[in-house]
Amino acid sequence: MTRFERVAVIGVGLIGGSFGLALKKANACGTVVGVGRNEANLRVALERGAIDEIGSSATDAARDADLVLVAVPVLQMFRVFSAIAGVLRADAVLTDAGSTKQDVVATARRALGGALSRFVPAHPIAGAEHSGAAAAQAGLFEGKRVVLAPLAETAADATGKAEAAWRACGARLSRMTPEEHDKVFAAVSHLPHLLAYALVRDIAGRENSAQLFGYAAGGFRDFTRIASSHPEMWRDICVANKDALLVEIDRYAAQLASLRPLVERCDGPALEQLFTEAREARARWLNGDFDA
Amino acid sequence: MTRFERVAVIGVGLIGGSFGLALKKANACGTVVGVGRNEANLRVALERGAIDEIGSSATDAARDADLVLVAVPVLQMFRVFSAIAGVLRADAVLTDAGSTKQDVVATARRALGGALSRFVPAHPIAGAEHSGAAAAQAGLFEGKRVVLAPLAETAADATGKAEAAWRACGARLSRMTPEEHDKVFAAVSHLPHLLAYALVRDIAGRENSAQLFGYAAGGFRDFTRIASSHPEMWRDICVANKDALLVEIDRYAAQLASLRPLVERCDGPALEQLFTEAREARARWLNGDFDA
Repeated sequence: MTRFERVAVIGVGLIGGSFGLALKKANACGTVVGVGRNEANLRVALERGAIDEIGSSATDAARDADLVLVAVPVLQMFRVFSAIAGVLRADAVLTDAGSTKQDVVATARRALGGALSRFVPAHPIAGAEHSGAAAAQAGLFEGKRVVLAPLAETAADATGKAEAAWRACGARLSRMTPEEHDKVFAAVSHLPHLLAYALVRDIAGRENSAQLFGYAAGGFRDFTRIASSHPEMWRDICVANKDALLVEIDRYAAQLASLRPLVERCDGPALEQLFTEAREARARWLNGDFDA
Repeated sequence: MTRFERVAVIGVGLIGGSFGLALKKANACGTVVGVGRNEANLRVALERGAIDEIGSSATDAARDADLVLVAVPVLQMFRVFSAIAGVLRADAVLTDAGSTKQDVVATARRALGGALSRFVPAHPIAGAEHSGAAAAQAGLFEGKRVVLAPLAETAADATGKAEAAWRACGARLSRMTPEEHDKVFAAVSHLPHLLAYALVRDIAGRENSAQLFGYAAGGFRDFTRIASSHPEMWRDICVANKDALLVEIDRYAAQLASLRPLVERCDGPALEQLFTEAREARARWLNGDFDA
């Protein structure tokens, strides 16, 4: 098994913290050094064993690392990549956990310079509505997908090491181009988050919001769970994946507009058919019929 | 404690079956007779102890009952009410479990005749995406709300007995007018169901649906859980609560339309504020701040 001597985790939140815990549990690394903006959060990560040291800066943490994970909101990637580009070891592997890939790749091209060949863009599909090192778990990536999107410039050994690291975390690996990735996740992740936020925001803004929340039950709770997600992270995702997300917003608005007349004219058979198709598709999905 | 000698459950699905199990567990009833369209489902209810007898018809089952629950999709209420109106005992109490209340009340006025004074409209807020007697549980109503909407014509002793029955199931009772009820649930329940169905249906209808479902994860799973709900039941709700639901569809479409330009012009601060407001409102709700 590939073992990393010194791992730098830049951004020790749910994902970064879980990465440290998972690598340690797999005995796939020596020391993990963590860097972040929030001192109290870093101390939680240290106490929980997600990291062994608190680094003074991204630059210092990356300098001696043979594996660097950047797990910050995507619009902060430029700052981090710029800080580490000049110090990255020639044999180090750099990977990220950004929920969008085209903008992260574009940022890497602008900021990494010669270190670009060490970069293996990645997206672990393992979010949660809880954030911070306190929510990190060694098993977060267990059986979950990690999408890798290596560049033409990425060195083969870097890709191999990144694969080894994510695999040590228990993940199932797959590959996509950044373009494909961003379209797929706009549909199955970014849009639903926006829809959930929009519903809760709408209800919260009404005069009788206390009454409405007072009668909201289990269906509402699950539908809106993702509206408890990290606002800064999701702000960045919306901005970074704007084009694909706008396509999905328009598509969904059209879907809703096409559904409205079925309700208006009380078209029971059409409504029942639509609901049945959705229920059956979801049952096939839960059954694993679409697992690659 | 009020005890019922003979309970008739018309429609022995998740709600009707759980009602039987809960009353029996509370030792609040003698015999439960169940009636339904699906013979196999009734046998499951019998085996699981949700009912003690299978009735030959709603009319026969209601004839000797001192408590009748009608738990069928709301557009079937007319047929059931008409079948039992002539045989209901003068001291019996009739309640229902319909997710809409204005149409059920209107139906009761048309169908029940002199038995209207025995009717206590009710809505247990305890759905699930699983349906049928196989999914019924004695604890389904435990701590959940049941909204009662007694009519001006409802006899006081009938309301008292209905309250006793639902309370024996473990429910917390509250009261609303049918109009108020239908507006509130259009916003916090009926619209979210429609939105979830619409998203799954849209994804299922695409050429690359297998790929999209293949990458859908936990957020998608919870957001769409209610899209696995009973199609016939939700068809009826959409038709029965059309007016309030159309208001909510339009309101949500406007909310989405007002959110779109924030994404289009990459307005990070406005997006973050909106997401933060939603997250905080949801946190207050989970914290119980809106519980009556």
